[in-house]
Amino acid sequence: MSPDRLSVTFAALADPTRRAILAHLAKTGETSVTELAKPFEMSLPAISKHLKVLERAGLIVRGREAQWRPCRLEAEPLKDAADWIDQYRQFWEESLDRLSDYLHELQTKEKQDDQQK
Amino acid sequence: MSPDRLSVTFAALADPTRRAILAHLAKTGETSVTELAKPFEMSLPAISKHLKVLERAGLIVRGREAQWRPCRLEAEPLKDAADWIDQYRQFWEESLDRLSDYLHELQTKEKQDDQQK
Repeated sequence: MSPDRLSVTFAALADPTRRAILAHLAKTGETSVTELAKPFEMSLPAISKHLKVLERAGLIVRGREAQWRPCRLEAEPLKDAADWIDQYRQFWEESLDRLSDYLHELQTKEKQDDQQK
Repeated sequence: MSPDRLSVTFAALADPTRRAILAHLAKTGETSVTELAKPFEMSLPAISKHLKVLERAGLIVRGREAQWRPCRLEAEPLKDAADWIDQYRQFWEESLDRLSDYLHELQTKEKQDDQQK
C-alpha cells in the first residue's frame, strides 16, 4: 500500500533541512540546486536527496531543462496539511485559555494575600 | 543529534493510524488503550507502538495507573505545526486566486464566443 498523500506531506516536513529549503524557496522563488545548496553546507547529492523527497510530496516543482533544473515552491499540499491540523485548533486554544485562567487566578490570589498582610 | 520538536511532531503525524487515533481522542476525551484499539482492527502491541510515537511527540498524555493507562489528546504541539505551515498560507491562497482568475477568463471567453455565433 502506497502511503496516503497527507502522510507523504507530513513525512517530507519532518526534517529541518527540507523545511529550510521550502523557507528559502518561499523567499527566492525559482532557484537552481547549486544556489539552494549554498546556505546548507551540504553536498549536492545530499541536497538532491532532500529535493527528491520534496518533489515526490508535490511540495516543489522542478524545471525540465536537463542542465539547470530550477526548483520552486508548490504550496498546495500545505493547504491540506493546514486543514487537517486546523480541526484541532479548539483544543490548543482551550488549553491556552485554561492556562490564562490559571495565571489570572494566581494573580488574584497573590493580591488578596498582599492585602491581608 | 536528536531530532527537533517540529520534526518529531510532523513524523508522528505522517501515519494514517496515528492521525485516526488523535481524531478518535478528540471525540472521546480520555480513552483506554483497549477502547482505542477497537475501531482499528489492530493488535494491542501494534496500537501501543503508535501510542508510544504519539506520546514521545507530546501529542497524547497517558495516565499513571499501571493497569489502566488512559490516553488523552494534547494539542499543544499541533499549534507549533500549524504556525509553521501558516507562513505559507499566502502561497496557496495565491495559487487558488490564480486558478479562479483563469476560470473566470475562460468563462468570459466562452460567453464572447457564444455572442459571436
